[in-house]
Amino acid sequence: MSEFDDIVRITHGQAELTDGWVIGEAVNGGIVMSLVTQAATEALAAAGSHTDLVAFSTTFLATSQPGTVDLETTILRTGRSFSTAEVTMSQAGKVCVRHTATFADLDANSAPIHREEVPPALPDPDQCAPALRMGFAEKIAILDRVDIRIDPATAGWAIGQPARDGEMRAWIRFKDGREPDVASLPFFLDALPPVTMTFGAMGWAPTIAFSGHIRSRPVPGWLRMRITTNNVIGGLFEEDAIIWDSRGRVVAQSRQLAGVRMPPAPHSAPVPSASETV
Amino acid sequence: MSEFDDIVRITHGQAELTDGWVIGEAVNGGIVMSLVTQAATEALAAAGSHTDLVAFSTTFLATSQPGTVDLETTILRTGRSFSTAEVTMSQAGKVCVRHTATFADLDANSAPIHREEVPPALPDPDQCAPALRMGFAEKIAILDRVDIRIDPATAGWAIGQPARDGEMRAWIRFKDGREPDVASLPFFLDALPPVTMTFGAMGWAPTIAFSGHIRSRPVPGWLRMRITTNNVIGGLFEEDAIIWDSRGRVVAQSRQLAGVRMPPAPHSAPVPSASETV
Repeated sequence: MSEFDDIVRITHGQAELTDGWVIGEAVNGGIVMSLVTQAATEALAAAGSHTDLVAFSTTFLATSQPGTVDLETTILRTGRSFSTAEVTMSQAGKVCVRHTATFADLDANSAPIHREEVPPALPDPDQCAPALRMGFAEKIAILDRVDIRIDPATAGWAIGQPARDGEMRAWIRFKDGREPDVASLPFFLDALPPVTMTFGAMGWAPTIAFSGHIRSRPVPGWLRMRITTNNVIGGLFEEDAIIWDSRGRVVAQSRQLAGVRMPPAPHSAPVPSASETV
Repeated sequence: MSEFDDIVRITHGQAELTDGWVIGEAVNGGIVMSLVTQAATEALAAAGSHTDLVAFSTTFLATSQPGTVDLETTILRTGRSFSTAEVTMSQAGKVCVRHTATFADLDANSAPIHREEVPPALPDPDQCAPALRMGFAEKIAILDRVDIRIDPATAGWAIGQPARDGEMRAWIRFKDGREPDVASLPFFLDALPPVTMTFGAMGWAPTIAFSGHIRSRPVPGWLRMRITTNNVIGGLFEEDAIIWDSRGRVVAQSRQLAGVRMPPAPHSAPVPSASETV
């Protein structure tokens, strides 16, 4: 069993979150998304319905701590093309997450390719910056589970030189050799450091709402990711993520709204006409 | 009362959808999103909580027809910074939509601007192509309610010359003079023709899952929109939308996964390395 399969294992509607996947005090939101997706998948499998995730949305209502969580799953639809389930995850009676996941036949929806975004060129993984070496990592237990290699061109923030351009590119894979699959993609979509670190905002960025799409089944090997933000306004920003597999196929994409505490800007941009853009 | 306020009016947990907002046989999904958001807003207002929408996700389980719909609302959280409600919309006992909406203090989250996408330059509205003149419009009742002016540079598909680049830019506003506000933004986010029309796919594109963020309160006047897709694979595509108000402020953005029946391509692109990109 891999570390990932271990953490998303569900027994009689319960799972055991460990401190091996925390960021600070809270369990990583990506692991929670893969866990609630697993609950939905098992419910639809038991109903003899679709089991390939294609879309999900997760609303984070409270942080989760290591310990037992309860998973309550309701099937909303079993259709010819799409089936949908909803999962509520709670801890000690408090609802932490509400999750809706839609399933289909992914192989039938992975071809033909009419249009597909090509992956960015990245230096080889051993020419990139391992996330473990970075200062913010001391409380980030998930960095013991995943190998993240950030393109140095987008890692200036790690050495006090934030590019302030809202883009990070990286390789990512599990450290224990488990290969990526559909079940792990919700986790990977939220596994990089928050894109707001490219502005020098070095703190945690709690997700408010997250939505993801699975576009094809990943083949074994390194995943390539790009995360971006174009709008950091007040204490909120959107983070868009896209993941390619080792063949260069788009396997997943997401958009989330998250909170951030921004550092004082080196130059202020108080009016729209003076704001940065892509 | 405006036509929009009329269609999203809720009385004793019910609303009356009319054939004035249909696309083909089904009620427009954007109107449904604004209606269920209205139900969530009223529930949180009654609880004395936040009433400014900041994030929502809507899963479409079945199409809605003109007629009575039932709205059942559950408050999931009333917090210091964020409050969340969930709405189930059903028709004749069948669940059509599951919707989760998170509210906050939008004014506190609309400034300062650390980074903001600037709107695209568009020809004046009277130099753009009114959506009413286009062939696909005969069954699209919402085009009697909204004034859409598409940038001719992105409207070639309407005259049989699809650009195949996955981008549409337009002005949009209500025809009856009602000004845009937060409540109407979920509707506007899904009001343009599907971006797959830029590939010559002239049919309906049913939304599977939709997620939106509200970033600031729109001022009166025309809204500017851009919709894009980078991945049209099998029968699915993502559509990203962004809306600016007449000051040029980003007011809303969204990402949806939707279905499409693509026409035969003039040139095939069967492998990733040959696929189109942005």
